Amino acid sequence: MKTLNLYALEGIPLIQQGDDIGAIICEIAEKEKFSFEGDDIVVVTSKIVSKAEGRLIDTYKVEPSKETVALAKKLEMDPGKLEVILRETKRVLIARPGLIVTEDRLGFISTGAGIDSSNTLPGPKGQVLSLLPEDPDVSAKKIRQAIEKKIGKKIAVIINDTFGRPDRKGSVGMAIGISGIAAVYYPPTKEDIHGKKRSPEIAQIDEIAAAASLVMGQTNERRPVVMVRGVDFQPSETDKIKDLLHPVTKYIQDALEAVKQAKGEK
Amino acid sequence: MKTLNLYALEGIPLIQQGDDIGAIICEIAEKEKFSFEGDDIVVVTSKIVSKAEGRLIDTYKVEPSKETVALAKKLEMDPGKLEVILRETKRVLIARPGLIVTEDRLGFISTGAGIDSSNTLPGPKGQVLSLLPEDPDVSAKKIRQAIEKKIGKKIAVIINDTFGRPDRKGSVGMAIGISGIAAVYYPPTKEDIHGKKRSPEIAQIDEIAAAASLVMGQTNERRPVVMVRGVDFQPSETDKIKDLLHPVTKYIQDALEAVKQAKGEK
Repeated sequence: MKTLNLYALEGIPLIQQGDDIGAIICEIAEKEKFSFEGDDIVVVTSKIVSKAEGRLIDTYKVEPSKETVALAKKLEMDPGKLEVILRETKRVLIARPGLIVTEDRLGFISTGAGIDSSNTLPGPKGQVLSLLPEDPDVSAKKIRQAIEKKIGKKIAVIINDTFGRPDRKGSVGMAIGISGIAAVYYPPTKEDIHGKKRSPEIAQIDEIAAAASLVMGQTNERRPVVMVRGVDFQPSETDKIKDLLHPVTKYIQDALEAVKQAKGEK
Repeated sequence: MKTLNLYALEGIPLIQQGDDIGAIICEIAEKEKFSFEGDDIVVVTSKIVSKAEGRLIDTYKVEPSKETVALAKKLEMDPGKLEVILRETKRVLIARPGLIVTEDRLGFISTGAGIDSSNTLPGPKGQVLSLLPEDPDVSAKKIRQAIEKKIGKKIAVIINDTFGRPDRKGSVGMAIGISGIAAVYYPPTKEDIHGKKRSPEIAQIDEIAAAASLVMGQTNERRPVVMVRGVDFQPSETDKIKDLLHPVTKYIQDALEAVKQAKGEK
């Protein structure tokens, strides 16, 4: 039987700005008697990376522009929060009451530039938002280096977050930063069970991110770190999360096409 | 440590039309000394379900219409294959050379109505395509009933397939049929780690489908059945895969909005 095992560390302390997540993972793993093996994949939720990197903003300190205040009224959103979202946004893709879908500065298409207030301590005067890490690939690399130095084995690190999708309800764990693993997986076997040629492209890092998300939980589970063991993956020292992303022009082109088709144009 | 374990059965025979997949799973599980526990989730790839249900079509037997031949030329596709796709399609959403994205009769938005020729035996005169199961929820229920009868415990079944996404490269395992599990997961805990109110909607069945896909493989791995143990899920006797899907009108509305925003309209 081929097996795949996920282990979520319990007892990770509340992460503070400046904390060394890689070192904390090693410490808790030792306490929990988890021993790393080579080719383990460590999935870390972006939330604690953002906290460690101080990517938190008190909305009461944010001065929304006049344009933002007007748009916030239209979208029925908090102007301070919208201001923070827009600062992290390259392009707004969908904007209607209750929903803003953006291409953020990292190239991700998500709701509100991946900004939220879950699992942050409330500020003295209100909401504290967490932004995505400055550069999630760099964050992943730092965590990876700290762990590899300690254990003397090669691993991979994926930073994940939960995103919505246009055609399906609910959120799904997806990869937002990687280190040590290829962005797209091309299986080494090039034939199907009947010997026909195949060359599938698999978004394996998203599948791993989704699997880890199942045990991390989304409320007060406090399991922000999950080790995944048993995935046949392609190591890479150079791949970045951008290598998984379609350019947003493709998204727009597809949207254009969908609208044309729906209208019955040729 | 919270753990999540996936077990892929090895030695599942090549599935033929008329095979009872639930019975085969029980048989191989016994041979492999896998013992089911209550609340295990069995993920079955749609490919073997389609085969068991005889959802295979030899393209040489298909007579494409004149319209299909013309469209196939434009899209640089095989006319026979396109004819089969269109018969399973409710609405074409994107159509350009090399790519056709459809809303199929089941409501899924995917490339080519989820039809492909991987892991099918070549027919006497060419390509054999597999269509999605007639009603994947019904297929899931049958498999579930066969297993539950044999083991005397409650489980859940998910039929999965791999889909592309508009903003990210590569394919990801997603759920296309369910039995015994809620379509959308609402965690029973309603607070985050700091006691703030939360009510996340989680596409847990897609996360499970993605996790299982990691071990199933996409070429000649022959691991079409994966048992998932350790997920906190909400059982349901009534939920269907449709309960996870947004109506396609939302997709069109979002596409419209994306195009408007990209053009800088208000």
